[in-house]
Amino acid sequence: MSKTSKLKIIPLGGLEAIGMNITAFEYEDSIVVVDCGLAFPEDDMYGIDLVIPDITYLLDNADKVKGFVFTHGHEDHIGALPYILKQLNVPIYATTLTMGLIELKLNEHELLKTTRRKVVHPGQTINLGQLRVEFIRTNHSIQDAVALAIYSPAGTVIHTGDFKVDYTPVFGDAIDLQRFAEIGKKGVLALMCDSTNAERPGYTASEKTVGLAFDTIFSEHRNSRLIVATFASNVDRVQQIIDTAYKYQRKVVVEGRSMVNVISTAQELGYLTIPQDTLITLEEMKNYTDEQLVLITTGSQGESMAALSRMAGGIHKKVQIRPGDVIVFSSHPIPGNEKSVSKVMNELYSKGAEVIFQDTHVSGHPCQEEIKLIYTLVKPKYAIPVHGEYRHRIAQAKIASYLGYDSRHIFMLSSGDVLEISDEEEYDAEVTGHVPCGGILVDGLGVGDVGNIVLKDRQRLAEDGIIIVVLAVDQEGQVVSGPDIVSRGFVYVRESEELMDEASEVVYEAIEEAVGNRGSDWSRIKNAIRDDLGDFLWKRTKRRPMILPILMETE
Amino acid sequence: MSKTSKLKIIPLGGLEAIGMNITAFEYEDSIVVVDCGLAFPEDDMYGIDLVIPDITYLLDNADKVKGFVFTHGHEDHIGALPYILKQLNVPIYATTLTMGLIELKLNEHELLKTTRRKVVHPGQTINLGQLRVEFIRTNHSIQDAVALAIYSPAGTVIHTGDFKVDYTPVFGDAIDLQRFAEIGKKGVLALMCDSTNAERPGYTASEKTVGLAFDTIFSEHRNSRLIVATFASNVDRVQQIIDTAYKYQRKVVVEGRSMVNVISTAQELGYLTIPQDTLITLEEMKNYTDEQLVLITTGSQGESMAALSRMAGGIHKKVQIRPGDVIVFSSHPIPGNEKSVSKVMNELYSKGAEVIFQDTHVSGHPCQEEIKLIYTLVKPKYAIPVHGEYRHRIAQAKIASYLGYDSRHIFMLSSGDVLEISDEEEYDAEVTGHVPCGGILVDGLGVGDVGNIVLKDRQRLAEDGIIIVVLAVDQEGQVVSGPDIVSRGFVYVRESEELMDEASEVVYEAIEEAVGNRGSDWSRIKNAIRDDLGDFLWKRTKRRPMILPILMETE
Repeated sequence: MSKTSKLKIIPLGGLEAIGMNITAFEYEDSIVVVDCGLAFPEDDMYGIDLVIPDITYLLDNADKVKGFVFTHGHEDHIGALPYILKQLNVPIYATTLTMGLIELKLNEHELLKTTRRKVVHPGQTINLGQLRVEFIRTNHSIQDAVALAIYSPAGTVIHTGDFKVDYTPVFGDAIDLQRFAEIGKKGVLALMCDSTNAERPGYTASEKTVGLAFDTIFSEHRNSRLIVATFASNVDRVQQIIDTAYKYQRKVVVEGRSMVNVISTAQELGYLTIPQDTLITLEEMKNYTDEQLVLITTGSQGESMAALSRMAGGIHKKVQIRPGDVIVFSSHPIPGNEKSVSKVMNELYSKGAEVIFQDTHVSGHPCQEEIKLIYTLVKPKYAIPVHGEYRHRIAQAKIASYLGYDSRHIFMLSSGDVLEISDEEEYDAEVTGHVPCGGILVDGLGVGDVGNIVLKDRQRLAEDGIIIVVLAVDQEGQVVSGPDIVSRGFVYVRESEELMDEASEVVYEAIEEAVGNRGSDWSRIKNAIRDDLGDFLWKRTKRRPMILPILMETE
Repeated sequence: MSKTSKLKIIPLGGLEAIGMNITAFEYEDSIVVVDCGLAFPEDDMYGIDLVIPDITYLLDNADKVKGFVFTHGHEDHIGALPYILKQLNVPIYATTLTMGLIELKLNEHELLKTTRRKVVHPGQTINLGQLRVEFIRTNHSIQDAVALAIYSPAGTVIHTGDFKVDYTPVFGDAIDLQRFAEIGKKGVLALMCDSTNAERPGYTASEKTVGLAFDTIFSEHRNSRLIVATFASNVDRVQQIIDTAYKYQRKVVVEGRSMVNVISTAQELGYLTIPQDTLITLEEMKNYTDEQLVLITTGSQGESMAALSRMAGGIHKKVQIRPGDVIVFSSHPIPGNEKSVSKVMNELYSKGAEVIFQDTHVSGHPCQEEIKLIYTLVKPKYAIPVHGEYRHRIAQAKIASYLGYDSRHIFMLSSGDVLEISDEEEYDAEVTGHVPCGGILVDGLGVGDVGNIVLKDRQRLAEDGIIIVVLAVDQEGQVVSGPDIVSRGFVYVRESEELMDEASEVVYEAIEEAVGNRGSDWSRIKNAIRDDLGDFLWKRTKRRPMILPILMETE
């Protein structure tokens, strides 16, 4: 029998696609959860607003859960928290800005009063049951990002969160590489490292290079109004735009709800410095000429309701795009958003604006050389690639293998896997089980009330529409009214009268035959309608609308 | 009064987005139409298979239309032809391979016998009423592509079609730059040039560079089965894969319906040369070991039903992906397909395969330096950027302006614009009118029977589903059965009993009040149900399902 218990690492999400990051670390009676993110719906999840993780396992072990610790304040790491806290109220731990962004959410969900929360600074360590968690400064496309060292009697795990190596960050210090080395020197059982950019060779450029690009743009477009779209959460980016605006004596207007929220939070907490008399309101814009203005706005991903998209579409109430305007996309399209970004650009161009989308963005994730650097500093026994699609994680696995790790020291986990790990033997890690996991769909106020059946219905309705056949039957099984046929999303009925008349006949015949044969067997009548009408429509249109027969019994 | 009539250039599609290229050239009693392409549906066109152009203008002037001429055999240039020929039966003119691909379509639509068609070779000229059309050899990602010189008494227009400059094409000759120069020297009124890559600096690489990449891949993976996915229509690409397979003594299997069709057509017409005993069938694969095989397949865009996607998803009947397989994506994702391509890659990786997606594709469109070259050879009086989204066309307009064209010599047309043009005065081109244009939606066998109303219904159904409220009313206006509530795509009813019970009550009350007030005014009852139930559900769920009240009258 082994001397100590093993550490369990249980990712409850985040390993199959970008988003929904949440991982439980369990040692005996103590569970600590790292991050609690949401995922945005896939294209075929019609009507769904967001997806949150299934935490059945945590609820089943609620007495063990000591708290949530957070690596940074992006939606895919904090976004599910309000929904989860309603099921499992435990303390939360995060750095200053991350906590500020979490509190914005808790406030919206009226959870501020009931949530115990503690701000932790990089370099600090907190005790959570038998586990200790140290917060280590990193760099990322949002400030105050940290990696976590999770200390257990079975060994130490380093979870990088999302990070990059930025030797010249805009705000604060560079990633604490010395501490990674120090902990590594003492021995690290496993490294869970960000894989997002693991397919890309080289290094990710410093955020400061974007500042240089802004300087060039401001200097080359002195006579134009400038509009810069970027991610609300990238406070360093916003800082650089503001600094450049100040240098070129422009006033700054901030537009877009999330941009306003994040900027005011960051400013309050001291993460953003705005020179006096630089920020003006949307209403004050009219007092300035074009060359005195820069707008910072949301919508860099072409999101249909974001401020920039509304400006481009000509439906923004206060900003009209004019010939001569220069719009800067300080972002890359996230996979899946390419077409909507292009649509917004086309609209801007067609209004006579200039669009700039090159050299004004850098990634927040490590490329191959940075990943090698972290492995070499930490020298973990086991490599567990996290954060990214399978293709990205396998790319990191290849880097690990290139660095000398054999396949028994690299773990490609799936969400729900229980990896038990310790340092007693050379090969002392294995997946020993699987816990429930998956995405819970949130649609409006409903959490989990849309499942596979409802989604499949929506997909079918979207594809070919619906045909409803209603008839009233008396107690003898005689049809006393109808059948009436109503369709939605199938064909333009007024121009398809012939088709719909024939469909009626098919239904009449189907009912007559079904009723004639066996009296009032309702399910027989319904099936006959569904089958005969379905066959008829497929033959005539090659479409398969949902067919919904409704029979009413009258007294 | 001017000496001669003007030439009218009327694009009927293709200028707002990629696809649906079709342009009419009209001089007095003669109309010639260049290309007749389809567009693929936008993401929110649920259930739509393809989109074809509105040719009302051509039908209204049917006696003038002398024929269709084609630049090359891609879907966005020939795909709508069968649908259009059913409305307007005129002769068609195309190069050998383009005609071969058109004939595949005409055959499917049983139009071969009734369509007059003539194969034209690059260098030839045809007379079409008062217009003459010369076919000029170009290069593109499909063979036998041509530019067209359209000669009219009002002057000459050169339409490049889609093209690139490939000095070392895999098959046939390089683009006939001398002829461009010669026609240019004589004087060209307008150049309509491909804009797709106009945002990209430099030159597009030769197709031959892909052959070198294949050689490296084949030589580095001698022990693996190779599967190469590419566009069916890129016969040069397929030729290079076959040549490399032959060099490395592998047998070639072709999989995917469109790949099989195009390859057999290209082979018949002499555009593809397959060494003897190289091609084997899917069934013969079992007689060979992995290292003796290469599969060429469709699915490089992640299309859900294509062969590679079925292999990756484990639902292909005859090919199972195994660890060690090497899959080459010889393509770039077309904007909008990024996520589906990534999904297929993830599935392949998770089955243990190796995926290669770099250096094995080049574009078929001209970059900035090639565009400058064509302008400089042709020296047109007017620049009319075509082919590409607005952002791409405006990028070409900027190139023209950089080359010295002023804004009155550059025309950013919209589909439906009538540009009248001649050479009598310095500024002798203007948009004088607008003709009907737009996309006709094809869904299954239906052409044009799905319009905006049906699409909007599908979008609404997709978003939040439908609730149907049925009741039977007697002639006195008394409810004799129901109301019954049936929902699809709204909530999982079994787990939302409470909500549905309350919804029933809301409906009861709405009916009672509406019936009580004014007898049997049906539309009043329907509206009451729609409004009250809609409000209730919005308040409770923040969703807006379609609400469909159906009243039946019984005798």
